[in-house]
Amino acid sequence: MLFDDLLNNPAKWMVESRDEHDIVLTSRIRLARNLTATPFPGWATRQQREETLKLTSGEARQIPVMKGGYYAELSGLTQQQKQLLVERHLISRELAARSEGCAVLISRSQNASILFNEEDHLRLQYILPGIQLKKAWGAISKIDSELEARLPYAYNTRLGYITACPTNLGTGMRASVMMHLPGLVISEQMQQVVQAAAQLNITVRGLYGEGTEATGNLFQISNQSTLGDSEDQIVERMTRFTSDLAHQEWNARRRLLQSSSLQVKDRVSRAYGLLTNATLLSTQEALALLSFLRMGASLDIFSHQALKNVNKTIMNIQPAHLARLSTTDQTTPEHRDQIRADIIRKELSGN
Amino acid sequence: MLFDDLLNNPAKWMVESRDEHDIVLTSRIRLARNLTATPFPGWATRQQREETLKLTSGEARQIPVMKGGYYAELSGLTQQQKQLLVERHLISRELAARSEGCAVLISRSQNASILFNEEDHLRLQYILPGIQLKKAWGAISKIDSELEARLPYAYNTRLGYITACPTNLGTGMRASVMMHLPGLVISEQMQQVVQAAAQLNITVRGLYGEGTEATGNLFQISNQSTLGDSEDQIVERMTRFTSDLAHQEWNARRRLLQSSSLQVKDRVSRAYGLLTNATLLSTQEALALLSFLRMGASLDIFSHQALKNVNKTIMNIQPAHLARLSTTDQTTPEHRDQIRADIIRKELSGN
Repeated sequence: MLFDDLLNNPAKWMVESRDEHDIVLTSRIRLARNLTATPFPGWATRQQREETLKLTSGEARQIPVMKGGYYAELSGLTQQQKQLLVERHLISRELAARSEGCAVLISRSQNASILFNEEDHLRLQYILPGIQLKKAWGAISKIDSELEARLPYAYNTRLGYITACPTNLGTGMRASVMMHLPGLVISEQMQQVVQAAAQLNITVRGLYGEGTEATGNLFQISNQSTLGDSEDQIVERMTRFTSDLAHQEWNARRRLLQSSSLQVKDRVSRAYGLLTNATLLSTQEALALLSFLRMGASLDIFSHQALKNVNKTIMNIQPAHLARLSTTDQTTPEHRDQIRADIIRKELSGN
Repeated sequence: MLFDDLLNNPAKWMVESRDEHDIVLTSRIRLARNLTATPFPGWATRQQREETLKLTSGEARQIPVMKGGYYAELSGLTQQQKQLLVERHLISRELAARSEGCAVLISRSQNASILFNEEDHLRLQYILPGIQLKKAWGAISKIDSELEARLPYAYNTRLGYITACPTNLGTGMRASVMMHLPGLVISEQMQQVVQAAAQLNITVRGLYGEGTEATGNLFQISNQSTLGDSEDQIVERMTRFTSDLAHQEWNARRRLLQSSSLQVKDRVSRAYGLLTNATLLSTQEALALLSFLRMGASLDIFSHQALKNVNKTIMNIQPAHLARLSTTDQTTPEHRDQIRADIIRKELSGN
């Protein structure tokens, strides 16, 4: 599979929307795995990393679901290509920062991806739209079993899977759900949500994980600890928490519509007015405005064909994706803001 | 002439636009006059005020240009009617606050109005669109002469016309030009303008005169002193200053378009997007947004039929004018914001 084929075909989770209220965007499961008798990537020599990569990627590419997928070593990718994969959530920022001996393998459907020699020897990831952690866990587990049958995994009966960072020890699992929570943000309930989450060892962060802000009211909800609970327990707890949260968000929106219906309608209408007229739009502002449109759609005060593909639009307006659409090499931030505004205007006016 | 006829027919200066760049909205001349041997309105008893009014209004209504005009005693007007006349610049806030023995006479064209027993026994006013102070002075001077032939004006050869407040002594004239100066505001040159004006005894204030803010980048430029200069000198100096200022504003806009063309276009487009989509609009925001549209029109980056009548629109979106258009008696600020948004949306979408 070629890079352009990958980019030109949106991943299934970008165009499918399972959640009726458009509150839950995606469910993602990530597993950290390492080989025995080989230093972790951060401690390995370049030669050791390359040897590990040869072994792991060779086996991974044999797994049925990964066959015919997209494979690339990081050293062979341009800065822009790396950024494109980050924006698609197919590789992590951490992997993008690495080079020799690091690689990525992405399944044809783009649901599954395997990162080689990021922090751990192997990072397996599976993304699905809506709340589908259980299904994602089933899928990734299958890939994991096939790999485990072919590779000498570092596993300890007391500690579980051995990982480079002790915070991943045990299951090595991170289950994340990306949610759109404007109702809870506007009604100032997010602080409470974060506190309630913390008590369940669940963290609430911005769009691109640690250290990023909650642009466009998009939040990533993930389990914090990997030790002490089984995978099924983590999936179960995360599913329950995010389902409850979706319900809370829905209630917050209904309450807002009841108590300040005029203001909510005004906010949604203004967002539409700006998105369809502005000639410069930053990623941050575009996401925030799209956030209000989505909320308006879910409350039946606004309807638009273009909102069906909003996951795809959110992807397409990010810097590296935009740069691809630019006809010139000049990709100043201002130029990107202009292209971004053009794309959104076209998308929303149905051209 | 009935109140409703007055309100339903926009004044000529509201619908005519003489200035090619839409920078100068109106020119206005006001004269303060008093009778001899009668206390100023503020010192007079109610009976004295009523006697003066009978005399002055009786004579004023005989003047050809004022015949068949609208005449009302303030005690016979509702609060809303008073507010409507203030918003149309036909009476002052000061007159609106008064009652017994006070009145207004407005010519059929609504160019001329005479206030009775405001701060002075007589306040004559003439409004024209664009920079036409000289013409307005000619017109008001004619009315003034006709009144002077019929009434015993208080006049002193050394001090000129005697007025209740010493700041009006001399010519009793206030020449004001209302200007739209977004270019100078955005490029932060207004402070300089205010200082330059002060050196010429000219003041720069917000839309409704003293103590009001420059909403929508609308400024009232007036002569400060009435003593020492002849009427012709005041008109001449004010005409020169405001013509120069219009030129400066025009240059500021051109420079903005050259140096930050994308930002200017974006600002204008966003204003249009908000005006045509918002469902709640305060007077202040509406004026500010209309201000950008007008600027865009003058720079040929935006064109719209509706902008031709922008003076009328600015009038129609003010609180009392809006209240008239409301179908219910409930005129909460929020309800007015809603009607205001409706009016503007209709006006701009050409319905």
